[in-house]
Amino acid sequence: MVRVGVDESLSDELLIGFPHDVEIVRIPRNLTDTIEIDFWILPFQRRDAAEAFSHLRGVKVVQSMMAGVDWITPWLPKDVTLCDGRGIHDISASEWVLAAILSSLKRFPLYRDMQLREQWKGQASVSDGFLNERGAQVGQYRVLGDDLSGKTILIVGYGSIGAAIERRLVPFGVNILRIARSSRQNPEVQDVSNLRRLLPEADVVVVIVPLTPDTRRLIGATELSLMKRGALLVNAARGPVVVTDAMVEALNSHQICAALDVTDPEPLPVGHPLWLAPNCLITPHVGGSTPEFIHRAFQFGAEQVRRFVAGQPLENVVTDAGY
Amino acid sequence: MVRVGVDESLSDELLIGFPHDVEIVRIPRNLTDTIEIDFWILPFQRRDAAEAFSHLRGVKVVQSMMAGVDWITPWLPKDVTLCDGRGIHDISASEWVLAAILSSLKRFPLYRDMQLREQWKGQASVSDGFLNERGAQVGQYRVLGDDLSGKTILIVGYGSIGAAIERRLVPFGVNILRIARSSRQNPEVQDVSNLRRLLPEADVVVVIVPLTPDTRRLIGATELSLMKRGALLVNAARGPVVVTDAMVEALNSHQICAALDVTDPEPLPVGHPLWLAPNCLITPHVGGSTPEFIHRAFQFGAEQVRRFVAGQPLENVVTDAGY
Repeated sequence: MVRVGVDESLSDELLIGFPHDVEIVRIPRNLTDTIEIDFWILPFQRRDAAEAFSHLRGVKVVQSMMAGVDWITPWLPKDVTLCDGRGIHDISASEWVLAAILSSLKRFPLYRDMQLREQWKGQASVSDGFLNERGAQVGQYRVLGDDLSGKTILIVGYGSIGAAIERRLVPFGVNILRIARSSRQNPEVQDVSNLRRLLPEADVVVVIVPLTPDTRRLIGATELSLMKRGALLVNAARGPVVVTDAMVEALNSHQICAALDVTDPEPLPVGHPLWLAPNCLITPHVGGSTPEFIHRAFQFGAEQVRRFVAGQPLENVVTDAGY
Repeated sequence: MVRVGVDESLSDELLIGFPHDVEIVRIPRNLTDTIEIDFWILPFQRRDAAEAFSHLRGVKVVQSMMAGVDWITPWLPKDVTLCDGRGIHDISASEWVLAAILSSLKRFPLYRDMQLREQWKGQASVSDGFLNERGAQVGQYRVLGDDLSGKTILIVGYGSIGAAIERRLVPFGVNILRIARSSRQNPEVQDVSNLRRLLPEADVVVVIVPLTPDTRRLIGATELSLMKRGALLVNAARGPVVVTDAMVEALNSHQICAALDVTDPEPLPVGHPLWLAPNCLITPHVGGSTPEFIHRAFQFGAEQVRRFVAGQPLENVVTDAGY
């Protein structure tokens, strides 16, 4: 009988869809003995994953439910099949990105700050950290929010989530530019060598690449300086894809705005200059995580186990650390 | 020659599209003499509009560039044609509504507050003002953001902006319910007598009616109590459409969440209980106003003037205060 390893404290509710002809093996948090399993489900990043794996025997498949598997590849033997969570984050991650873009353009963080001060100040000049030169002075009307309509959005890392972001952007009437590791057509995706050429065209740059040796520090001082002045950088990928010091400098000089669900380091420590940099919205790595997400994730996990039991090809097999 | 009255300080840039065969008359802010004009353009609400009008002679058309004209109808003689700004706010107002829905569901105001405290706290229990019972406990995973996907959105006041909101919601995979003054088909819009029946079905209630005697206090204690517990009320209409005291109570008891671009009173005074009510995001009546909006508005104004000069029917004529 196929043995499927899950966290010791996993809710039974999440296992409802699993095949009845497998044995669910609950793996304790502090393993000392060895345990035999065939299929290991790792729903979230756990710091002790490598240590836990060293106590497992017979593992043929590791199923991560995160889109990025950079925290698994360094210690997982090549003969174990690794499957990632591609697709299961499309909804929650693309929704977070839309929320981040719209909130930033509409200056909701500024208004939230003003709300906490019980301050009603709309179409007027506001001279605090969240105002920048973009707050266009059009005729005598100084306004504090921008339209998304008509903007150019550059999606860096055009995979499953990137396409989900684009679908949700379409009715807003925007222009989309797409970059991935390799170029393709329908829709037109340009390879990553075009990044510096496309950056100056974008009002919003959405970074949604996996973290690999190629994407680490992909957005540095040069890339940030190539962005339009006041353009918005959205990082929904991994913190180290952006060079933090360069980003802090670009924020402090009002070169860019940012909306970040990930940072480097993470968690961001108290006192870090990124926390209170101007025009920067930070959420604590929650983009992919919604109550509905975890159900979608375990539905997918159940289907993968069913395929494994039936000897069918698995989905989302990680062949190399590409994007 | 047709005489078109505009504000004395209006930017020339906004008049570029106007016909060359009209005379632009700049109307001073503190009128003492009388002025002859045919067509008066009122881009934004001005408190002295009635007083200013009493100094104008020969006015045949008043063109407001706001969607609501409740501030004009009380003093404008019936023989003057009133045109509203229907359509020109579709983009900016619908974008604000999407920003408000997504920010609230994703709990961005909570995360912004935590950012100001330099606090990184993601998938965990957060016991402050922005947490409520909706933060679903699914298995052991307590998460703080919701998906928009799968939610039911009730649009109360399904006109031009309502349809623009729906177009932007479609790719998120939501269920839409529509209410207007009178019922119609394609898409199905139910008349306002169905409001209390539909409220319990909605996860998000978007109020986007004009302010009329019929819509004043449309959402009161009974309506709020009929909403799903923890559902989101979005007011992008006018403050008095919602009964403020009832809303404060519904917020404080965690019956509802709210995102408000308008309040009653407005501006909201320091110390008002709405400012710091839990699960409430407030922006200071900025939803319709973006730099691009004012250009769209004056493009529309120029077309209206051209129609007037050519003796063609005007668009957006207000026949009665309906929605």
